[in-house]
Amino acid sequence: MQAVCIFLEKFNYISYNITRLRSVMMTRYDIAIIGTGPAGLEAAITAKVRNKNIILFGSKDLSQKMQVVKHPILNYLGLPSKTGVEMANVFQQQLDELGISITEEKVSNVYAMGEYFALQLNNSEMVEATSVILAIGVVAGKPYAGEENFLGRGVSYCATCDAPLYKGKVVAVVAGSQEEEAEADFLGEVCEKVYYFPQYKDEPQLNSKNIEIHHEKPVEITGMMKANTLRTDQGEYIVDCVFILRPTQFPGSLVPGLEIAGNAVNVDLQMKTNLPGLFAAGDITGQPYQYIKAAGQGNVAALSAVAYVDELKRKKQ
Amino acid sequence: MQAVCIFLEKFNYISYNITRLRSVMMTRYDIAIIGTGPAGLEAAITAKVRNKNIILFGSKDLSQKMQVVKHPILNYLGLPSKTGVEMANVFQQQLDELGISITEEKVSNVYAMGEYFALQLNNSEMVEATSVILAIGVVAGKPYAGEENFLGRGVSYCATCDAPLYKGKVVAVVAGSQEEEAEADFLGEVCEKVYYFPQYKDEPQLNSKNIEIHHEKPVEITGMMKANTLRTDQGEYIVDCVFILRPTQFPGSLVPGLEIAGNAVNVDLQMKTNLPGLFAAGDITGQPYQYIKAAGQGNVAALSAVAYVDELKRKKQ
Repeated sequence: MQAVCIFLEKFNYISYNITRLRSVMMTRYDIAIIGTGPAGLEAAITAKVRNKNIILFGSKDLSQKMQVVKHPILNYLGLPSKTGVEMANVFQQQLDELGISITEEKVSNVYAMGEYFALQLNNSEMVEATSVILAIGVVAGKPYAGEENFLGRGVSYCATCDAPLYKGKVVAVVAGSQEEEAEADFLGEVCEKVYYFPQYKDEPQLNSKNIEIHHEKPVEITGMMKANTLRTDQGEYIVDCVFILRPTQFPGSLVPGLEIAGNAVNVDLQMKTNLPGLFAAGDITGQPYQYIKAAGQGNVAALSAVAYVDELKRKKQ
Repeated sequence: MQAVCIFLEKFNYISYNITRLRSVMMTRYDIAIIGTGPAGLEAAITAKVRNKNIILFGSKDLSQKMQVVKHPILNYLGLPSKTGVEMANVFQQQLDELGISITEEKVSNVYAMGEYFALQLNNSEMVEATSVILAIGVVAGKPYAGEENFLGRGVSYCATCDAPLYKGKVVAVVAGSQEEEAEADFLGEVCEKVYYFPQYKDEPQLNSKNIEIHHEKPVEITGMMKANTLRTDQGEYIVDCVFILRPTQFPGSLVPGLEIAGNAVNVDLQMKTNLPGLFAAGDITGQPYQYIKAAGQGNVAALSAVAYVDELKRKKQ
């Protein structure tokens, strides 16, 4: 009975989000690509060259990891002895030539809806795509205990999306970087109280008076039907929701139902995951963590996605 | 009993070749890479950057397929809008910078010897390597009926190596390109008679008087303990050996015991084949046939080979 209730609550939560967000204008893209490292970029250029209608989510800096590589990379065939920044410049030029733009909104969840995927963005908009390519890189660490279990039942990855549900309530925010502070301020305006747990070095600069800063490490999220407690290394906090805001999501948290082994998404040689229409490429598929390998997998993922989209169109005719 | 004899004959043939050729100076390379398309080149630069002692077999033109691509290739991340020839020039420059040279001898067979591989070259020399990366591309068509079954028992891929075994005898040569004519002429000097079956358009220019040219298509090689007959679409030829000389070998013929599915070598995500220490990358692993995918797989194959070589060294210490 409890399992049924949990299922229904999860289902209600998802349909609530989707119904709410379908009111926003919907464009169904052929392929959504998440990530602008070498895997995502190669996937984008291959899908674009194959005339697909694509949307590419990522950063205008392309990849944080590439931005910090100051030594020359020797083993990228075709680009000898370029630093990460120089490589990124060459890649950006290629995107420009092909007219590929980058959407900087963060994708907080990807839901498999059958014949398409619904991508929930951090600005609370929804985007639809027939096929999705995950190229978000590898995330160090692992989800907190209870995090994935309570997702949609008192655990959220998107403040803008879910803040209205917690008006006048008490929430916790676990923030992976300073960039999440704006989201915390927004929650501070809506909620009665926000416990803020910065997981970064710099001192937080928050505006809302409803926010209490605690320099503690989250350990576990517990509850019954819904999460109601955040346990840290120093204490316990009774809350209505725990918002976990990381620069990059764990793939299993981003896409419910996705098969994972350790830190890596399970793929075959065609970069297929266990979810039809969902492909993965680059560091997210496991070691080795290499630019040219990531690009190669991005190419294969894109061609697999193109074949998937074409096959679905044929079936509908 | 017959099976035992066949086994012993095969074994004798292989040990004959190896014993004969071990007399030539032996350098045991860490990694032998066969093929100079994007997969082989990326494997070579990655292995070289990782300080391995490598030998790279291929063509100074790098890849015949790249040489004929006159239109710009749009989807190689980092090299926008380059023709195949322009790309090859960039790759060659990178090889030069890293001091990687290309050995143009053709590899006619690769034998798994336990802790190393023995590579038989067309000039009848032998090279040893702890690990091998196959990046020879995809070969259209399939072996003739009986070809792989009689390999080493009346079927040979190397005239220079095996001609002395057929002095004064009658042999057939099935030649895939004009480049094989020199080998046929050499057989013409040694053998009593050579039936020559050109499988290409241009009229053969052969010097030896012992050669009879037949414009026929081979269909099957038959025999008992050894092959003794080549059947074509027009007749049957009683011979002591059938020499099959192709520009590129079928992978199953090149490496006895290698697992194949259709035209592709079976690999996992780390580019491992069923033979420990043997890796494959690029078109040889199946579709899609794309430069950047080939390069990505070459990188993974090289890192897997490096790990294999290092592990073997550790065990020996």
